[in-house]
Formats: sequence, structure tokens, C-alpha cells
Amino acid sequence: MKYKKHVFICTNDKPAPKKCCSSEKGMELVNAFKESLAEKGLNREIRAQKTGCLDTCAFGPALVVYPEGVFYGKVTPDDVEEIVEKHLINDEPVERLKLDF
Amino acid sequence: MKYKKHVFICTNDKPAPKKCCSSEKGMELVNAFKESLAEKGLNREIRAQKTGCLDTCAFGPALVVYPEGVFYGKVTPDDVEEIVEKHLINDEPVERLKLDF
Repeated sequence: MKYKKHVFICTNDKPAPKKCCSSEKGMELVNAFKESLAEKGLNREIRAQKTGCLDTCAFGPALVVYPEGVFYGKVTPDDVEEIVEKHLINDEPVERLKLDF
Repeated sequence: MKYKKHVFICTNDKPAPKKCCSSEKGMELVNAFKESLAEKGLNREIRAQKTGCLDTCAFGPALVVYPEGVFYGKVTPDDVEEIVEKHLINDEPVERLKLDF
């Protein structure tokens, strides 16, 4: 597998009043993940990137971590370090942010 | 897992002369996948969507299928039906298009 973990963060915008993750909030998360991974020298084996609608609009800002397919919702930049440390590095999903699908 | 298969298709543009997948070619693929899956009634269990750069620019138009993390390169709309039938439905990756990472 090219990446040990591959994180896809929704940066989709939808016309109001539809709920959505939003490009602004999504890109804040993308940048926070990229910075954290680069600082730790992990950005070759773990990739975080923007993506289109994950069909989890009501729970945004949302993202999914593959290969395990764990979705997270209502994620803020303050949550990123915890997701990186616990889930991406130590393989323990962050239960308080997990979406149960 | 929310989706049995989740297909992320690069629709990124980069300034020429850099090689890239391109939003135009990428969106042709996104639409072809969405149409094929909808026709077969599979669009709730299998999702295809646009994404940002997959860091496979030299091999674009590119996409990745999770949870198995199989990357494909130089994909054209004519290849979509084969990927849907063989890989997404029958779990047999299409070897002639696979990128070996």
C-alpha cells in the first residue's frame, strides 16, 4: 500500500442553508494535518489531503481515514494533533470524534 | 465500514508544464463512475468522488480504490466499466491499469 494511512478531508461548499463541511474549515484541517505530519517526518508514509463531499454533510467538518474507513465528524484544528498521535501513529481511533456508520 | 468500496479520483490542476491529472479529465472519470454505479443501483454501498492531488501526477489521470489502496493510472472513461465490473463488484483489480507502489 502506497500510504500507511490516507486521510481525506472534505473541503466541499454547498449553497446555504444546506449544512456542509466548507472549504474554509476543511482547508484549516488539511493544513493542520500536513503541518503536523511534516513536523514529525511522517508525510511520506501518511498522506492528508482535501477531497470532495463525503456524504456526511450534517456532521462536518468531516474526514475519513483509510485503509480502515474510520469517519470523524465535527473536527476542529484543535483535534488534529490527537488524531495524528492516537490514530495515525498508534492505530487507536479517537472515539469521541468517530462517526458510527 | 460506511462504503464497501470508496473511489477517490484526482481532479487537481497544476500550472503547465507540470504533469497532472487535470480537473477536466478527472471530472469525466468521476461522472462516468457515478453514472455506472447509479445505473447498477450500487451508489449507496460504493462511492466515487473527486479528490485533490494523490501525488501520482506523472501517471494521471489517477485514482485510488479503498479500503485496499489500489492505485490506477492513465485511466480513461473507456476503462471505467471494467474497473466497476471487475474490481468494485468482483474484487479483482484491473492489472493493466494498476500502479505498483
